[in-house]
Amino acid sequence: MPEKARIGLDLFGGDNAPNATLEGAIFALKNNFVDSVYLIGGDQSLKEKIPEELHKKFIFIKAENTVTNNTKPTDVLKLKTSSIYIGNEMMKNGEIDAFVSAGSTGALLAAGTFVCGRIKGIDRPALVIPLPGKKGKVRVLVDGGANAELKPKHFVSLAKEGIAFAKFLGIENPKVKILNIGTEEEKGTKLVKEVSEIFKEDSKIVYDGFVEGRDIFEENVDVIVTDGFTGNTVLKTVEGTAYYILSELKEKISKGGFFAKIGALLMKNALKGLKSSLDYRQYGGTFFLGINGILVKAHGSSDSEAIANALKVAQKAVEEDIVSKIKELL
Amino acid sequence: MPEKARIGLDLFGGDNAPNATLEGAIFALKNNFVDSVYLIGGDQSLKEKIPEELHKKFIFIKAENTVTNNTKPTDVLKLKTSSIYIGNEMMKNGEIDAFVSAGSTGALLAAGTFVCGRIKGIDRPALVIPLPGKKGKVRVLVDGGANAELKPKHFVSLAKEGIAFAKFLGIENPKVKILNIGTEEEKGTKLVKEVSEIFKEDSKIVYDGFVEGRDIFEENVDVIVTDGFTGNTVLKTVEGTAYYILSELKEKISKGGFFAKIGALLMKNALKGLKSSLDYRQYGGTFFLGINGILVKAHGSSDSEAIANALKVAQKAVEEDIVSKIKELL
Repeated sequence: MPEKARIGLDLFGGDNAPNATLEGAIFALKNNFVDSVYLIGGDQSLKEKIPEELHKKFIFIKAENTVTNNTKPTDVLKLKTSSIYIGNEMMKNGEIDAFVSAGSTGALLAAGTFVCGRIKGIDRPALVIPLPGKKGKVRVLVDGGANAELKPKHFVSLAKEGIAFAKFLGIENPKVKILNIGTEEEKGTKLVKEVSEIFKEDSKIVYDGFVEGRDIFEENVDVIVTDGFTGNTVLKTVEGTAYYILSELKEKISKGGFFAKIGALLMKNALKGLKSSLDYRQYGGTFFLGINGILVKAHGSSDSEAIANALKVAQKAVEEDIVSKIKELL
Repeated sequence: MPEKARIGLDLFGGDNAPNATLEGAIFALKNNFVDSVYLIGGDQSLKEKIPEELHKKFIFIKAENTVTNNTKPTDVLKLKTSSIYIGNEMMKNGEIDAFVSAGSTGALLAAGTFVCGRIKGIDRPALVIPLPGKKGKVRVLVDGGANAELKPKHFVSLAKEGIAFAKFLGIENPKVKILNIGTEEEKGTKLVKEVSEIFKEDSKIVYDGFVEGRDIFEENVDVIVTDGFTGNTVLKTVEGTAYYILSELKEKISKGGFFAKIGALLMKNALKGLKSSLDYRQYGGTFFLGINGILVKAHGSSDSEAIANALKVAQKAVEEDIVSKIKELL
């Protein structure tokens, strides 16, 4: 790695940009999460919002706010002055070491793949997602939504991206499971059965059979492989279920009378702990692994805390050279 | 409907059979959930376990316990003395009005479709699942796992089964949404886009666009249509997430010290209410809609309460003639 990591940050992507983005960058620099931030889309006028002692750690890069959630992924390649395009281009040219964006998943993947290229031997870059689990153990789901449709052979890329990310998160000798609607060999679609056969033959994959949706939080799960349609649906279902349960609990407390309210007050810390263990912001960003570069996707609704954590994981990925972790598996 | 509903019950299917099955039937009869129970697989020797005043409401039908979770669905058609086969055959012959089983989904679907046949105009029977939602509003997910792989045209059957079941649950003018990884028209697989176009053209379907996994519990959701692979994965993910959250909460309480424990005690009713609002047993069984008959699938891990509720919905489906609700849509 370079002596100091140069982390690019897309000022425009995400629901709370640019304010939350800038605040997140300031927080990350104040707390030494990162060495420096290349603010792509920012200019000198932002300096007045930045504490003076951090001025020298900010580099402003001119770029335009032209990619929206409605931009077709392929159209991004024509928007060469957009923050997403320029961030990837700077990474490709070695001007930054990582690029963080809360912008559109499809646009980021298209720009990352087209501009930076794929790692040789990887045919499908994908989104690797850290998920909490029982006894505080983290696990990885891949693909979180980069590739809605895949052929059986493409899942080999996904498995290797998942393994690399699991190692990055500190999981030793990660095992790979395939998400399915049953654990018996004969269950599921033709696709998952074919993927299962391919994984069994690959010496770089420690294949551990099928896993069902109800068991994704179990202790013995390291890497869960599925297509981007199912993976994205699973992630959003987890989010929706958690939100639904917490809102139900809140309602039951409010209707539960005096004792329930006192009880909730006494349990405040436990409830707060629960919420934060499910909070995506604790994990910061996720990665598009498989491209030639460190491309970090922050959640679209990231607040400043989430942006700061995304910058933190980007710095760590530069320090640990996450790309080399995939290459070892090829 | 007949003067009194004749509900068939598979004594053998499910993890807790036959004890929980028999207890569930006794409970259902005691509480007048059903008029009578045809216990398929039962014999007179069970009478000693049944309160005498209920003896005349039980009819014992000889059948064998030959279908397991590992039985290939197509093999069930050869097991003509199995409880699953005989239950469907009796329904086909008009000897019972509905058949309830906690046995294997695949085996039940195969026997139901082959023995009873499909409703004319329906080309894919599917599993319709009631889901709780915000403000106590129920919604329907279809397909819950009957058909892992489907062509676009098959989703029309699913939508109509979902609408019929939503009406059965008391939802007026149910609208149909397609599960997808985004709500914008250009999002998702070729499959969901094609289904969307087909739904727009069907005058019997009030099509309401895409819905993401995170929004399935929202108030404005009536019917969610998806393939059986994704649907089953969503259901199991909801179950896994709920279980994970409640176990985390329990752990946080146990580690939270004195006040957290007192708080949990005071909140006991609220927590209990939460658990029961997420408890599949409250809903009893789900249906394989689309076949010529009322085939109720109880959860594989049903206890006696779940069996009793499954019998209750079977009785209601006979009274309301749920099959005619689908025919209206064809």
